[in-house]
Amino acid sequence: MIAEIISIGTELLLGDIVDTNSTYIADKLTANGFDIHYMTTVGDNRERLIRVLKKAISRADIIITTGGLGPTDDDLTREAIAAATGLPLKKVPALVEEIKDYFQHKNYPMTENNYKQAYLPEGARSINNQRGTAPGILLETDSYIIISLPGVPREMKFMFTGEVIPYLQNLLQGKIKSKVLNFFSIGESTLETEIKDILDKQTNPTLALLAGTGEVKIRITAKGKTDQEVDRLIQGAEREIRERVGQYIYSVNDEDLAVVTGRLLVEKGLTLSVAESCTGGLIGNRITDVPGSSRYFMGGMITYSNQAKMRHLGVKSTILENFGAVSRETVSEMAEGVREKMSTDIGIAVSGIAGPEGGSKEKPVGTVYIGLSTPTGTDTFKLKLKGDRVWNKWMSSQYALYYLYRYLREN
Amino acid sequence: MIAEIISIGTELLLGDIVDTNSTYIADKLTANGFDIHYMTTVGDNRERLIRVLKKAISRADIIITTGGLGPTDDDLTREAIAAATGLPLKKVPALVEEIKDYFQHKNYPMTENNYKQAYLPEGARSINNQRGTAPGILLETDSYIIISLPGVPREMKFMFTGEVIPYLQNLLQGKIKSKVLNFFSIGESTLETEIKDILDKQTNPTLALLAGTGEVKIRITAKGKTDQEVDRLIQGAEREIRERVGQYIYSVNDEDLAVVTGRLLVEKGLTLSVAESCTGGLIGNRITDVPGSSRYFMGGMITYSNQAKMRHLGVKSTILENFGAVSRETVSEMAEGVREKMSTDIGIAVSGIAGPEGGSKEKPVGTVYIGLSTPTGTDTFKLKLKGDRVWNKWMSSQYALYYLYRYLREN
Repeated sequence: MIAEIISIGTELLLGDIVDTNSTYIADKLTANGFDIHYMTTVGDNRERLIRVLKKAISRADIIITTGGLGPTDDDLTREAIAAATGLPLKKVPALVEEIKDYFQHKNYPMTENNYKQAYLPEGARSINNQRGTAPGILLETDSYIIISLPGVPREMKFMFTGEVIPYLQNLLQGKIKSKVLNFFSIGESTLETEIKDILDKQTNPTLALLAGTGEVKIRITAKGKTDQEVDRLIQGAEREIRERVGQYIYSVNDEDLAVVTGRLLVEKGLTLSVAESCTGGLIGNRITDVPGSSRYFMGGMITYSNQAKMRHLGVKSTILENFGAVSRETVSEMAEGVREKMSTDIGIAVSGIAGPEGGSKEKPVGTVYIGLSTPTGTDTFKLKLKGDRVWNKWMSSQYALYYLYRYLREN
Repeated sequence: MIAEIISIGTELLLGDIVDTNSTYIADKLTANGFDIHYMTTVGDNRERLIRVLKKAISRADIIITTGGLGPTDDDLTREAIAAATGLPLKKVPALVEEIKDYFQHKNYPMTENNYKQAYLPEGARSINNQRGTAPGILLETDSYIIISLPGVPREMKFMFTGEVIPYLQNLLQGKIKSKVLNFFSIGESTLETEIKDILDKQTNPTLALLAGTGEVKIRITAKGKTDQEVDRLIQGAEREIRERVGQYIYSVNDEDLAVVTGRLLVEKGLTLSVAESCTGGLIGNRITDVPGSSRYFMGGMITYSNQAKMRHLGVKSTILENFGAVSRETVSEMAEGVREKMSTDIGIAVSGIAGPEGGSKEKPVGTVYIGLSTPTGTDTFKLKLKGDRVWNKWMSSQYALYYLYRYLREN
C-alpha cells in the first residue's frame, strides 16, 4: 500500500524546527511494509493545505498528517480535510465531554476555542490523545484513509504506536515485522562485502543496509501469514548474519550502547566509573541518560588539565612527561586511578586530541587513547578519528562504551 | 519572492535519516526575506522527481534541491532537471578537470561513473564543492531559478553559505538582514505580554517570537536600500526590546550558553570546574564542545553516589544526612569543594532528581539545586523542572550555565 506523509505548520517552513515527526512515521510505516512516495510540508494556510490534501488523496492509499489540530485560528487541519474530502464537520458530543474532563482534571481555564477540537469530518472517528487536548482523526473511505495526528512529537508518537500501528497492521494481508541489528567497528562497505551473497538472495525477509552516525545497521523485514511464520523468517536471516559477522553486533532495534552496557553491568552486579579528558563528560552524560544508572554508575573525574590527572587520578608526573597526556601509559593510569578512587569494579578512561587545535605530526587531531581497567587487568586502545571536534568526542565515547561492552560480553 | 525546497533521497522516505537540510535552508531563506510555501521529499525515482520539479517550477520563483547529485545510478537530479526544464545535459570540460584533480589529490580510485558529475543542463553554471566531488547546479531562467546542492549536510552548508546566499541576496531589491536575540528564564507568553506593543506595531523591521528548547528567541528582520539603513533599523528594534527585557537576553544569533560563558571566562581570565550529580557529565560535555575550552575549563567531578560526594568533594556526612543529597546545603558544599579541589576561580555544582524514579512528595522528580561558588561567595538556586529525564538534565545544564553567565556579566 502507498502512504504519504504531510507535515502542517508554518514554523516548519520558517526553519524554526526540524521535522522529526515525518521521519518517525516513515520509519514505522516502512517497517510495517508500506511504500512512501512523497512527504510534503505545508504551512498554516487553508488553501494550500487543501491543495496538498487533494493531491495526496489522488495518489496514495493512506495519508498521515501531523499538526494543525489545536484550538487556535491557525489550526486548520480539520477544516481542510472537510473541504478536501467534501465531508462536513460534525460536533461529536463524546469529544465535548472528553475535552471538558481534561481541562477540569488539569485545572486549566477552558475557552470557547477548545470546543473546535470536538468536531470531526462526517464518518470519521477520533483517536484518543492521552497526553494532550487535541484528539486525532481517523477517516476511512472506500478509496483512501486519512489519519491526522497532533504535531507535538510526544503526543503524536504515543497515539501512533498505541492506536495507529495496530490499525494499519490490521489493514495489511498477513503480518509484517522488522528487526534492526546494530553494528559497530565495521565499515558499511566491509559489512556489505562480507554478507553480499546473503543480501542479494533475500526476498522475504528483505535486508536493508543502513548507515548511522558512526555505525551501520541491517534492517530485516519479513512478511507472512502468522506471527510465528514472520518470527521464524526473521530468526533465520538473523542467524545467518550472526554466523558471519556476529562479533560486530552490539544491539538490536537501535538500543544505545549505554543501555546495553548498563543492562550487562546490572546482570553481572558490577560498578563503573569514568575518567574523561577529551570527552569532557560526554560518557558520563550518556551513561546517566539511562534511567536507573545510579545502580551501577558511581561517577567519575573530568580531568582536562594535567594537574587534575595527577592530583585526582594519581597519574605520575614522570608518565605525563615521558609519554604525554595522550598516550597508552596515561590512559592506563587514568583508568586504574578512577577505578580505585571511585571504588568501582571497572574504570574507563579517555584521553585524546579532539581538535581543531592541539594536534602535532606525531599525534594529529583525532588521536585518542582509551583505557579499560577491570578485575582481570587493564587494556588500552588507540583510535585514529577523522572528524571535527564534536564528532571525535562522540566516536571516542562510542568506542569507550563498545570496548566496555566487549569486555562485559566476554567475561 | 517565493521559494520551494525539494529533498531527494529514498533514505529520507524510509525514515532512515532526519531531513535537517530543509530546515537549515528554510531558516536561511526566511532570514533573507524569502517566503516558502512548500517543502517536498521525494525518493530516487526519475518519474516522481520530474513531477515534483515541474510542480515546483509552476508555483515558485526559486527552487532549491538537495541530494541526488552523486555518481551512482541512483543519483538522478541532473537528468530530472534536464527532463523537467527541457534543457539538455552538456558535458563541461572544466568540471571534468576539477573532478580528475580531486581524485588525484585525494589519491582515490576514479571510475567512469564520476564523469557523470561533469554534466550540467544547458545554460546552467556549477557551484564549487570544496568538501566533496559533486558540484552544485545553478540554473537561472527568465521565469524560475533552480539551485541543486548535494545531500551531505557539511558539503551543502558550505556551498549554501559560501555561494548561494550571496547570490540570493543579490537577487533581492535592496538588503535584508536578520538578528536573533536569545532569551532564557522567561516564558514565551510572559515575553509576548511584556513587549506586545512593540511586536504589534512593527512592519520594518518585523519581529518574530520563536520557541526553542527551553528558551525563547526573537528574530528581528529588516529591509532597506543599504547595509547602514538595515543595521540602523535592527539596532533600533533591539534597543527597544533590551530596554524592556534585556536582563533575560544571554546571546545573539543562537550562540550557545557554553560559548558565551567561555568567552567571558577568557576575557576575565577566570577558570572553571564542575561538580555534577544528576547531570552526569552533561555540563562538562557542553563546555568542552567549545574549541579552546581547555584555556579556562580545568575539569570536574561526576559524583553520582553520596560516597563520591564526600570523598572527592569534601561534602560532610552530616550535611548529607540532615539535608539529603538534593539540597541547597549539599550543592553549596559541592560547588565549594570542586572549586578548591580543582584550584579554579569558579565552581558549579548540580544535584537533583532527574527521574523517572527517586522522587518523593517533598522532593518530586524535577527538583534540582544548583550551586555557584565564586571569589565573591557561594550562591544556590532551586529549580522545579517538569520534563522527562533527558529534558530535566538538559534544563539543569541550561540553568547552571545561565547562572554562571549572570555572574560573569555582573562581576
